[in-house]
Amino acid sequence: MHSVGICGSDVHYWQHGRIGDFVVKKPMVLGHEASGTVVKVGSLVKRLKPGDRVAIEPGAPREADEFCKIGRYNLSPTIFFCATPPDDGNLCRFYKHNANFCYKLPDNVTFEEGALIEPLSVGIHACRRAGVTLGHKVFVCGAGPIGLVSLLVAKAMGASQVVVTDLSASRLSKAKEVGADFLLQISNESPQEIANKVEGLLGCKPEVTIECTGVETSIQAGIYATQSGGTLVLVGLGSEMTSVPLVHAATREVDIKGVFRYCNTWPMAISMLASKSVNVKPLVTHRFPLEKALEAFETSKKGLGLKVMIKCDPKDQNP
Amino acid sequence: MHSVGICGSDVHYWQHGRIGDFVVKKPMVLGHEASGTVVKVGSLVKRLKPGDRVAIEPGAPREADEFCKIGRYNLSPTIFFCATPPDDGNLCRFYKHNANFCYKLPDNVTFEEGALIEPLSVGIHACRRAGVTLGHKVFVCGAGPIGLVSLLVAKAMGASQVVVTDLSASRLSKAKEVGADFLLQISNESPQEIANKVEGLLGCKPEVTIECTGVETSIQAGIYATQSGGTLVLVGLGSEMTSVPLVHAATREVDIKGVFRYCNTWPMAISMLASKSVNVKPLVTHRFPLEKALEAFETSKKGLGLKVMIKCDPKDQNP
Amino acid sequence: MHSVGICGSDVHYWQHGRIGDFVVKKPMVLGHEASGTVVKVGSLVKRLKPGDRVAIEPGAPREADEFCKIGRYNLSPTIFFCATPPDDGNLCRFYKHNANFCYKLPDNVTFEEGALIEPLSVGIHACRRAGVTLGHKVFVCGAGPIGLVSLLVAKAMGASQVVVTDLSASRLSKAKEVGADFLLQISNESPQEIANKVEGLLGCKPEVTIECTGVETSIQAGIYATQSGGTLVLVGLGSEMTSVPLVHAATREVDIKGVFRYCNTWPMAISMLASKSVNVKPLVTHRFPLEKALEAFETSKKGLGLKVMIKCDPKDQNP
Amino acid sequence: MHSVGICGSDVHYWQHGRIGDFVVKKPMVLGHEASGTVVKVGSLVKRLKPGDRVAIEPGAPREADEFCKIGRYNLSPTIFFCATPPDDGNLCRFYKHNANFCYKLPDNVTFEEGALIEPLSVGIHACRRAGVTLGHKVFVCGAGPIGLVSLLVAKAMGASQVVVTDLSASRLSKAKEVGADFLLQISNESPQEIANKVEGLLGCKPEVTIECTGVETSIQAGIYATQSGGTLVLVGLGSEMTSVPLVHAATREVDIKGVFRYCNTWPMAISMLASKSVNVKPLVTHRFPLEKALEAFETSKKGLGLKVMIKCDPKDQNP
Repeated sequence: MHSVGICGSDVHYWQHGRIGDFVVKKPMVLGHEASGTVVKVGSLVKRLKPGDRVAIEPGAPREADEFCKIGRYNLSPTIFFCATPPDDGNLCRFYKHNANFCYKLPDNVTFEEGALIEPLSVGIHACRRAGVTLGHKVFVCGAGPIGLVSLLVAKAMGASQVVVTDLSASRLSKAKEVGADFLLQISNESPQEIANKVEGLLGCKPEVTIECTGVETSIQAGIYATQSGGTLVLVGLGSEMTSVPLVHAATREVDIKGVFRYCNTWPMAISMLASKSVNVKPLVTHRFPLEKALEAFETSKKGLGLKVMIKCDPKDQNP
Repeated sequence: MHSVGICGSDVHYWQHGRIGDFVVKKPMVLGHEASGTVVKVGSLVKRLKPGDRVAIEPGAPREADEFCKIGRYNLSPTIFFCATPPDDGNLCRFYKHNANFCYKLPDNVTFEEGALIEPLSVGIHACRRAGVTLGHKVFVCGAGPIGLVSLLVAKAMGASQVVVTDLSASRLSKAKEVGADFLLQISNESPQEIANKVEGLLGCKPEVTIECTGVETSIQAGIYATQSGGTLVLVGLGSEMTSVPLVHAATREVDIKGVFRYCNTWPMAISMLASKSVNVKPLVTHRFPLEKALEAFETSKKGLGLKVMIKCDPKDQNP
Repeated sequence: MHSVGICGSDVHYWQHGRIGDFVVKKPMVLGHEASGTVVKVGSLVKRLKPGDRVAIEPGAPREADEFCKIGRYNLSPTIFFCATPPDDGNLCRFYKHNANFCYKLPDNVTFEEGALIEPLSVGIHACRRAGVTLGHKVFVCGAGPIGLVSLLVAKAMGASQVVVTDLSASRLSKAKEVGADFLLQISNESPQEIANKVEGLLGCKPEVTIECTGVETSIQAGIYATQSGGTLVLVGLGSEMTSVPLVHAATREVDIKGVFRYCNTWPMAISMLASKSVNVKPLVTHRFPLEKALEAFETSKKGLGLKVMIKCDPKDQNP
Repeated sequence: MHSVGICGSDVHYWQHGRIGDFVVKKPMVLGHEASGTVVKVGSLVKRLKPGDRVAIEPGAPREADEFCKIGRYNLSPTIFFCATPPDDGNLCRFYKHNANFCYKLPDNVTFEEGALIEPLSVGIHACRRAGVTLGHKVFVCGAGPIGLVSLLVAKAMGASQVVVTDLSASRLSKAKEVGADFLLQISNESPQEIANKVEGLLGCKPEVTIECTGVETSIQAGIYATQSGGTLVLVGLGSEMTSVPLVHAATREVDIKGVFRYCNTWPMAISMLASKSVNVKPLVTHRFPLEKALEAFETSKKGLGLKVMIKCDPKDQNP
């Protein structure tokens, strides 16, 4: 293994031992945003060979069930997924993974870019489910790592203008840096007021809203803000029950869609990275060698910076 | 005009003078489920001539705005719509309408079938937004007129099995009559219990749920019941804010879509009626001449039967 | 194994030893339209157990390549496929197959219906690629087994009227029997004349044409006949190069789509058969025990009847 | 009127008096790539007012027929279309047009950019019908104006790599200038050889091919080149009958789709131009005042440069 990013879920398992119904019952290796170098392959593997640099898709179906067969393998209930209990993750020196879910990196894509395909995939899946296309106006709620990759992908898919909201000015300035057209710092506006401000900035309601906070008022703002016939994608997860103006969404045919992880994103992400169509490098703000993993997790836990990267290869700590 | 059905919204305007933001401020003709015979056409009209029997689509766009241009004219904010204030409806002897939204009826389709294309269109639009197709299992919440047309359309689109729920046994027996595979009479089950029962009846979770009641617990049941990757369509409208298990929907990628009236349904409905692929005749339970309109509305208000039809042509009171 | 249907490709391999680039280089078991009873399962198989009656999907991917991952596994170049050299088919007494591609049959679906899911799947895939839906008019070229299953599926998906053409009156009468609305016996009409006759019968051009003959003039007729904005699906395969009025198709936005086998059809086919929404039983016209396989193939080769079924279970020769 | 570009079809009508079935029978004003300033509006027009700078969509439906209702108004047989006989174009000083098909230009979009939305729309419609999205590899046949706008749009929609072919080295260098990743100058290669070279350049077959020449061998190359499951879009128009390897396309499920003009492109094009996501300015190579229209047409006829722009406003000849 070469580079493994720390995700909020890694920190959550470390601190709380569970996320929803997923409970850590025995020691579990963390990490699912990863890249490395192939050292050995099974006898049937033809696409990869030792020495190949690869990005790892952490979810690999265990069987060809009906979800896999229709191309939505992320919904397969028996899927293996790194660092979701009881499956071990790949934050370690050596790790074994289904070869069909290891993707060869071109020479001009770094290991860290390879590891960042995982969060980037969340943005791809969200924008794809939203149907973002040429000339769309997009509203992204939240300027954390997922909000930022959603912004990056929306622009790469042809969105003409993106508004990003957040409570934090420093997060918003990062959004500006990676391409946001408009920023909106939220203080105590009502959902309707936020929607009105978004419309004011764009000159019209956005066709797509990508909600990355999970906060109830933000979801409500997303419904009010989205243009009739548009789509609200829920990426952020909040409490079990949410109170929303469902009639407002329904009678304007604003579709509400969630995302569960992602599927079919690695090949297109690699194409984008190889052609320099998207730049994820600014997302990495901290790096620690594997030996200082605890320090790395503490940094991530404190919410400092954006993406903390752990360097697993003692001989190569480069990006 | 020949036959005009009474809709719940007609009764509501009559009794309350408003639905949401639509307020009746001056006398308004009711009626929007209608058919009749052409008596006169404008000089540019080529598709119709006096004597043609037609079904009337009550919504006719006033201008080619961006919603119209993309084929979703039901979302056009300036659309004319029969019996939505301030636009007059067509429950009268003579009525003028945009010729492009009057559709010629084949000889083997009756006037009442023509009038019933309006409620049928709600079912078509709902099933089409849900993506109902061959072999789908479908869960329809509510066995009123809209639940029944959704059931009819789902079967016509290839659904293999449909479960219908309702509080009323008599409504459910009507659902059975028009083709429901399974009935579920609701008493005081929790949403999760309803979902479990639906799964038990079908042997699996339904790919599609069509919610026609607007009741919060029924919407919740719809989310729990729908298969991962499936769709919940909201047809029934309830209170402004609704509390729903949004995380449960989002993480299983159950899409939540509303419908606002319908678009592009009359031609396909006429094709279906002409080829006898769908039978809407059992929906009509009462008929009154126009002179007894008040009695007709009282009957509809009491919830007796399913569809009350008003016969506007004094010379022809046939179906 | 219980029942195995003979397909034209089986006869072709038997007679010519090759189809296009697929060459039979060593003895090969034929058969890929099959059903049987599970006698043994691997240790990891949970969905099936000995005694289960199953239909067999003959194509089972060997690896999760990019085509599989997006749900189009039929396009996977390394797929295993029964009776496509060098892969053996299942026309024998005992046969081993990937359990994920064996589908349990409900009690009310016969073995022969199970075997007929294979040709039915071609019709499902064709109609699905064509986007057949409620109220569509459909033109099916050719009344052989594939034309007939396309007709059956189109009606089940909501097509209101289907025209079927063929050179043979007896084939057309079979089409009438299974539900064709209009028949057109072809003699020496030009493609344009055929298109005009189809339009005359339907009263308009069909939204969808499903071409099951592969004959050049029939493909040309399909292009002329299809409505602007509609779809022509090529199921029949003819010579390598075909001369077609491509400009006529392009400027009317008539899409031309082919089908390669099928994917994701068995579950919906079983749902349809179980709910009696489609009746494939009339397709079987001949039955032979496995011992008389040669006679069965001779019958199929002569073009007698429609589907010849070989009964592999000496203890049960029932449908 | 301010700026009107000359299209190949304008030159063709001028020289030959007809294109296919469209015959010029009486004097006709040419021009359909246009922008100008509103001087007067009808009493019902609310979106525009005198002084507004607008781009003109040359096709405006005359009635809400079934093609319009479903959002494919370009297929409406009665559509008005500038400079398609018998409808006059807008290459003149003053011109009247349906206000719903005049789109207000933001201050930061020039009149010439506004006029170029017409050819850009062909590229948008082609890429949209092809389903170009993030990470796609695209093969564009032909580096004329339409090939170039297809290239521009494909990149804006997220294509990672685009190969462009042409016979002319100078045209190819223009393609390079506007963003082509790979160039392929065609001399006398066979269609299969072209396909192989395209695959060699991209490292894999492209998901999408956009054919802008109409030449038979180029269409054939497009079929061979496109990845299984991909799409070939026919933009260039050639002779009535074309000989193509249809079986090769069909058995690999390569869809063949044409485009007829465009629909629903102006709003997204304006969004893209306003946000500087696409740069069409390099397309304009010549400018002539309206008084020198003949010279402008001669220049265009000789194939000099790319886009010849005629400046209709004597007071403002700026871009």
